[in-house]
Amino acid sequence: MPHRPFQPRIRSGKISDYFTLVKASPDTPARLGELATSHGIVPTPAFLPVGSQGTVKTLTPEDLKSLGVAIVLSNTYHLYLRPGIDTIERLGGLHQYMAWDGPILTDSGGYQLFSLARLCQVTDDGVLFRSHIDGSEHRLTPELVVGFQESLGADIIMALDECPAHNEDLAKMRKAVERTYRWAERCRKHHERSDQLLFGIIQGGISPELRQLSARGITSLDFPGYAIGGLSLGEPKELMWSMVDETMPFLPQDKPRYLMGVGSPEDIVEGVSRGVDLFDSALPTRLARNGALFAMQGRQNIRKAVYKNKGGPVDPDCDCYTCGTFSAAYLHHLFKCEELLAYRLATIHNLRFITRLIQRIKDAIQQGTFSDFKNDFLGQYQVTDEEVRLAQKQKWLDVQQQ
Amino acid sequence: MPHRPFQPRIRSGKISDYFTLVKASPDTPARLGELATSHGIVPTPAFLPVGSQGTVKTLTPEDLKSLGVAIVLSNTYHLYLRPGIDTIERLGGLHQYMAWDGPILTDSGGYQLFSLARLCQVTDDGVLFRSHIDGSEHRLTPELVVGFQESLGADIIMALDECPAHNEDLAKMRKAVERTYRWAERCRKHHERSDQLLFGIIQGGISPELRQLSARGITSLDFPGYAIGGLSLGEPKELMWSMVDETMPFLPQDKPRYLMGVGSPEDIVEGVSRGVDLFDSALPTRLARNGALFAMQGRQNIRKAVYKNKGGPVDPDCDCYTCGTFSAAYLHHLFKCEELLAYRLATIHNLRFITRLIQRIKDAIQQGTFSDFKNDFLGQYQVTDEEVRLAQKQKWLDVQQQ
Repeated sequence: MPHRPFQPRIRSGKISDYFTLVKASPDTPARLGELATSHGIVPTPAFLPVGSQGTVKTLTPEDLKSLGVAIVLSNTYHLYLRPGIDTIERLGGLHQYMAWDGPILTDSGGYQLFSLARLCQVTDDGVLFRSHIDGSEHRLTPELVVGFQESLGADIIMALDECPAHNEDLAKMRKAVERTYRWAERCRKHHERSDQLLFGIIQGGISPELRQLSARGITSLDFPGYAIGGLSLGEPKELMWSMVDETMPFLPQDKPRYLMGVGSPEDIVEGVSRGVDLFDSALPTRLARNGALFAMQGRQNIRKAVYKNKGGPVDPDCDCYTCGTFSAAYLHHLFKCEELLAYRLATIHNLRFITRLIQRIKDAIQQGTFSDFKNDFLGQYQVTDEEVRLAQKQKWLDVQQQ
Repeated sequence: MPHRPFQPRIRSGKISDYFTLVKASPDTPARLGELATSHGIVPTPAFLPVGSQGTVKTLTPEDLKSLGVAIVLSNTYHLYLRPGIDTIERLGGLHQYMAWDGPILTDSGGYQLFSLARLCQVTDDGVLFRSHIDGSEHRLTPELVVGFQESLGADIIMALDECPAHNEDLAKMRKAVERTYRWAERCRKHHERSDQLLFGIIQGGISPELRQLSARGITSLDFPGYAIGGLSLGEPKELMWSMVDETMPFLPQDKPRYLMGVGSPEDIVEGVSRGVDLFDSALPTRLARNGALFAMQGRQNIRKAVYKNKGGPVDPDCDCYTCGTFSAAYLHHLFKCEELLAYRLATIHNLRFITRLIQRIKDAIQQGTFSDFKNDFLGQYQVTDEEVRLAQKQKWLDVQQQ
């Protein structure tokens, strides 16, 4: 397969040839950047909607564009099992398969192997596992995973990592950190496509020492970008942010930083304030399908009886298609009737809420007022109670493993 | 509520003030017409997608417009139960509620009372029934049903009819015909909105004598349009068409004729050739959600393994968004993964197939070549085997009653 040459972004203020820091916040680590990929530039901070199976649930590529989505995430693990990497490669790669001509990031499957797959056996060589779909046995190695991502042709690809549960014992966690390092090294060596950016992933669970160890190790391999993995797995928020804080000092300024699996409105604001450039999470789209719609005052449950006769939009501040076209009452009715249109309209709203939030964040950084913005936003946006949140998260993790 | 005055269509060749016969086929009863409603003109023949709960499943109003849909059907029975007629009326009527500014036809609920509702008790006064959703008890009368349709504000509304199963005994069927007549009379008397067209419904099961009796009775009440109801309920196709043939001679030339619940591609062609102007059916959209996609050679099951690696569109002749954007392989993948986008993309294709079929029918009538078109189409389009079709239909009717 002919690989298109990667076109690095050249400009006067460049820090490296594919990532440009455009503006830094005066009093926080927040920053504006531009990440050049083979399928276009991603202005950062950016949120990646999750399309694990090659589709952001309910939406077309045109929907994503009109929502202001700059880059989407898909998943090697899911696509490997269905429809199979060779199928997508034969049909011209993932961009053509899903008819999305913008940038794509594929996750390596590291997280999915430990959360979705069954009877997962990890050795230094790689991972033996059974498919969560049909129980069939498979083996993945760092080299195979990089090869698959080269075949899929995503613009940003991820090294294979070992991602244990957050409450795993320290010895096992240390072993995972060491193995993740060695796998990252093998991925780096095996990766050939010059039109893709390969990111390394930092692990270390909830141990400050292991986080630092992992960050030192992975960054020593000189990847074009770094992800913080193994968080948002059911640990308390406070602990999550303290792990991010332990890790960030080790990440170079001039490379993009990606906080994996994190993407609630409040977490995006918190993450940006710590210098994170990229976020992904299925939360905004999954919540939408459950009828939980974002608004500036917090999540609104559209199924509640109070919406039955509400003539205005769910979120009067919103400029999305859903809010501009339909009443909250109609959306409530669609959810009550379990009409398929409900899930699409709610997804449109929640993703638009996120892309507008990102835009407001960018404007604030541009104007040097990000600290004020953060305080205003977090003062106004009512976050889900931590106990409720952790219970919901555990329920979701349990459902995934069934 | 102020009722907008109905704007009849005035033109030289007019036969009546709201329905214009534009062109007749030289050698069949097929005809082109224009049906003027308060929300625009419906060129006939026309197919009405079914949006029983105020939404054509998976589609937005913009989708419907771009597919060339001129008029949609919704259902008094469903909307009465959820969200309630008063809710929709308070929110400005059904057009505003579902954000569709084109013509709407509401069915009276006659068919649904006998197919969906439970413990249905029919008296001369009306119908006592239990909701299929929550078992709650309700009573409907011809007057109430007309009043509800006035509150909803559809452009074309239907008289309440009694619609027994096709294999009901003759005595009971005769009773239903007589009662449908008396109810039609009461609907006619009770209807006040001058901006709505009230259609009468002819019943009579599979008895030629009762079909004629019903047709004579209902047409004597001088409705602005006539529907043939009580067909496509599991009886053989041949019998269905013979009942249509018994009925058509009694329907005036200068009024629109509506064949209820019929809308497969082959049935639309057959119906038009008998002089039918309007069709509705959930079949094209329901089949789509089951992965059965229309093509000129007949239905294609996109779940079949043969599509896994097929790079081209499902139907190379089609100009719809789905066929223009995605491969059959991708659609196959979405169906295999039960991804919600699958249902929308397939619905777009099947409805576009129908609107293009209607367009080809209209072109053929215009050019005086409809007979040839019909023969060509029916020669090419492989119809589902009658035994399989009846088994599928019965399964569907059974599912509805569960």
